Amino acid sequence: MKLNCDLGESFGAWQMPVDADIMKFIDQANIACGFHAGDPVVMKQALYLAKNSNVEIGAHPSYPDLQGFGRRSLAMPIKELIACVQYQVSALMGMASIVGVPVSYVKPHGALYNDMMLDPQVRTAVMQAVGSINKGRLGLMVQSHAHNEALELEAQEYGLTLIFEAFSDRRYTDEGFLQPRSQEGAVLTAAEALTQAKLLIEDGEVVTVSGQRLPLQADTLCVHGDTAGAVEIAQQIRECMK
Amino acid sequence: MKLNCDLGESFGAWQMPVDADIMKFIDQANIACGFHAGDPVVMKQALYLAKNSNVEIGAHPSYPDLQGFGRRSLAMPIKELIACVQYQVSALMGMASIVGVPVSYVKPHGALYNDMMLDPQVRTAVMQAVGSINKGRLGLMVQSHAHNEALELEAQEYGLTLIFEAFSDRRYTDEGFLQPRSQEGAVLTAAEALTQAKLLIEDGEVVTVSGQRLPLQADTLCVHGDTAGAVEIAQQIRECMK
Amino acid sequence: MKLNCDLGESFGAWQMPVDADIMKFIDQANIACGFHAGDPVVMKQALYLAKNSNVEIGAHPSYPDLQGFGRRSLAMPIKELIACVQYQVSALMGMASIVGVPVSYVKPHGALYNDMMLDPQVRTAVMQAVGSINKGRLGLMVQSHAHNEALELEAQEYGLTLIFEAFSDRRYTDEGFLQPRSQEGAVLTAAEALTQAKLLIEDGEVVTVSGQRLPLQADTLCVHGDTAGAVEIAQQIRECMK
Amino acid sequence: MKLNCDLGESFGAWQMPVDADIMKFIDQANIACGFHAGDPVVMKQALYLAKNSNVEIGAHPSYPDLQGFGRRSLAMPIKELIACVQYQVSALMGMASIVGVPVSYVKPHGALYNDMMLDPQVRTAVMQAVGSINKGRLGLMVQSHAHNEALELEAQEYGLTLIFEAFSDRRYTDEGFLQPRSQEGAVLTAAEALTQAKLLIEDGEVVTVSGQRLPLQADTLCVHGDTAGAVEIAQQIRECMK
Repeated sequence: MKLNCDLGESFGAWQMPVDADIMKFIDQANIACGFHAGDPVVMKQALYLAKNSNVEIGAHPSYPDLQGFGRRSLAMPIKELIACVQYQVSALMGMASIVGVPVSYVKPHGALYNDMMLDPQVRTAVMQAVGSINKGRLGLMVQSHAHNEALELEAQEYGLTLIFEAFSDRRYTDEGFLQPRSQEGAVLTAAEALTQAKLLIEDGEVVTVSGQRLPLQADTLCVHGDTAGAVEIAQQIRECMK
Repeated sequence: MKLNCDLGESFGAWQMPVDADIMKFIDQANIACGFHAGDPVVMKQALYLAKNSNVEIGAHPSYPDLQGFGRRSLAMPIKELIACVQYQVSALMGMASIVGVPVSYVKPHGALYNDMMLDPQVRTAVMQAVGSINKGRLGLMVQSHAHNEALELEAQEYGLTLIFEAFSDRRYTDEGFLQPRSQEGAVLTAAEALTQAKLLIEDGEVVTVSGQRLPLQADTLCVHGDTAGAVEIAQQIRECMK
Repeated sequence: MKLNCDLGESFGAWQMPVDADIMKFIDQANIACGFHAGDPVVMKQALYLAKNSNVEIGAHPSYPDLQGFGRRSLAMPIKELIACVQYQVSALMGMASIVGVPVSYVKPHGALYNDMMLDPQVRTAVMQAVGSINKGRLGLMVQSHAHNEALELEAQEYGLTLIFEAFSDRRYTDEGFLQPRSQEGAVLTAAEALTQAKLLIEDGEVVTVSGQRLPLQADTLCVHGDTAGAVEIAQQIRECMK
Repeated sequence: MKLNCDLGESFGAWQMPVDADIMKFIDQANIACGFHAGDPVVMKQALYLAKNSNVEIGAHPSYPDLQGFGRRSLAMPIKELIACVQYQVSALMGMASIVGVPVSYVKPHGALYNDMMLDPQVRTAVMQAVGSINKGRLGLMVQSHAHNEALELEAQEYGLTLIFEAFSDRRYTDEGFLQPRSQEGAVLTAAEALTQAKLLIEDGEVVTVSGQRLPLQADTLCVHGDTAGAVEIAQQIRECMK
């Protein structure tokens, strides 16, 4: 199992800092491509940081929405959404090539990630876009839930390899979806999150909101680089992995 | 000698149409990369049009300035300008790769083109950016004037091949620069432009504002796709080339 | 009954022209505020055109979405949407004051107009925003349908006067909504549109898709300034009004 | 003499925080208008903070340049620059009216402020724009130097009242301009700044780089809200003023 973290989410004079110390504990950096965060200078800095930290690089494309940080759904026609993802991933891959590092996967950001999981049309657009780049050799990071094999079938049509992501710090429903943040207990405490991470790492399971154990494929765990104590959390999860 | 033309300068619902008929008469299309014009959908359409017309493709990066259509100088720090050009060219090249066509050169747009010719720092930034991409195999289109060898020397440092561009429809000074548009007679009539194109094609010279003949290297001539009679002008210049 | 028309939807170098001749036949101009179209220069030109044509001026705010021309729904939190509408209307009103003309109403644009009609939360946000400006003296233009009195009740809470808009060139359902464009016959021919306009003007009714006559309050009819024959259509509808 | 401070320079998810404690010690808040920082939500929050702190409010318009935070000169044609300033000030004034506070002056931001001081064309555009709003009742904040009477003459043409601003933490040349940041000693230490503030407050003079005392009109002193120790510095200068 791997750890992934968002990177390069500053914009111009505004910082969205990731503690550089966290880079020691993660395996994969999802780098913003300029549509929700990350301007060309910020992208290059993030690419160099990822390169020097020897972590795998993923493109982190978004709806075009700087003011909303990509967190607001935008009803883009499918043709526009495909081109929008292709543009962003292309820009990051070209700059990664200049920096001298490969890009190996795509993780959609924010509202695009959520919409991809909920709306088959959005998912098809993302899969088609990612599949069209670099002969389909990019992985696509998606949220693991109780019906991953259906996603696998869809991905096969585009020749895509899926990377299933789980969350250590969010409560799961019995269906393997995330409990909405608006519900009490949806966001786990640091201690609970560590317990959930351990269970995922050791048994490949989570304890859902109803108390059931649910098997959940997790190729990678998401950690947040900008929260207090992020470095310690990443370090502790990393130690569970040994 | 070749003919080049700007392409893909629509944006969203707004059209900046190029008569598709002009594609028959040109050799090179300079495609906007999203910073002064061209959104991802527009870029793809332009790439397909260029592909189907079998013309060479150049990236047409700009200062980030949609509202000003890239025609206003922006005092970008050099580091930002380099990253800004790298981002745009990368995005276009990636999308060209998806469409299945190569990108072979870069022509800066509008104010960035003018600043590149006048300001050594901007020129260095552009050369460094273009030289960093695809192992320096992209050509850089610049304005031909009376001192091209100095430009050639600068370009050598970055391993770049220059493509010298001349203008058929603008009056030249004795130094080989363009007479400012604000001066009377700076913009040639269609008949004068055809005469100037012929002289460039046959003798490699222009008649300057003082009446002198000036040798002027011209690897490519610029034609405008959105002016009235553009197709006829392109066709006539093309016939001079045979 | 009045005629209204969108105005000021160019952006920078890109034109979305309205035939100035149409100004003679309309009563109300909805002027874009910079978020889907209209930059500060374009806005001033539109304000002067409206002033010189002696037509009433409405603010035409939108979701922030230049590339999508405000035609894509954006899931803005209510607090953001309110501020976004207040900002746009404020900007237009201030510039109108500089030009020396009053702004008397607000007509939301594109996806925001549609969402306002369908989603009570969006409608509340728009009403609250419009009601907060100029002591609630601005009218709010909404789409007339079969249940206008419910809208009136909502508007009363914000002290707003509603202006009910009908469409001459779209087929109505029995509920008084517009038939979706995707359905055959949803967009009327010029002749049908003129017939529908006449029936609205003379009898305050439309013939719905099922052939029934439906009473429909119409304080204003929308005409499009950028379609072929727009001036003739506006002129003909205007003559029906005499 | 007054103290002024920039406010409302966050954007979307990105914070550019001003310590709310500083509000107790300042008299004037320059609020960003959305073109270099400040989205509609951020603007409203800043307006409420200024209102609750009972400080005077100024509009802080900029070149349109979010990514560059308004710090890069943009060669806008005069007509565009005028409209661009009118739009921003209008937007802020309208929102201030909604919040229930007046806007009493304009302070251009960043590169626009510098260009206004150096380039007569830019200055004319700014003066014309500010003079066109609210019948010329807005003040215009400019940088005080050794030739303020020339600025006063220019301002009279537009019926404008100037507010002369001095800087406590920057070294002055003998001409009353700021020493470029690139030169050693250009930025004063906290202790030096306090000494300079005192001299300005008590004697209306600064000690220039050559050691001369230069009379310098200062209606207001600029303090920075986002630097370390900003609150203490503002408090100490405030105490000198008593």
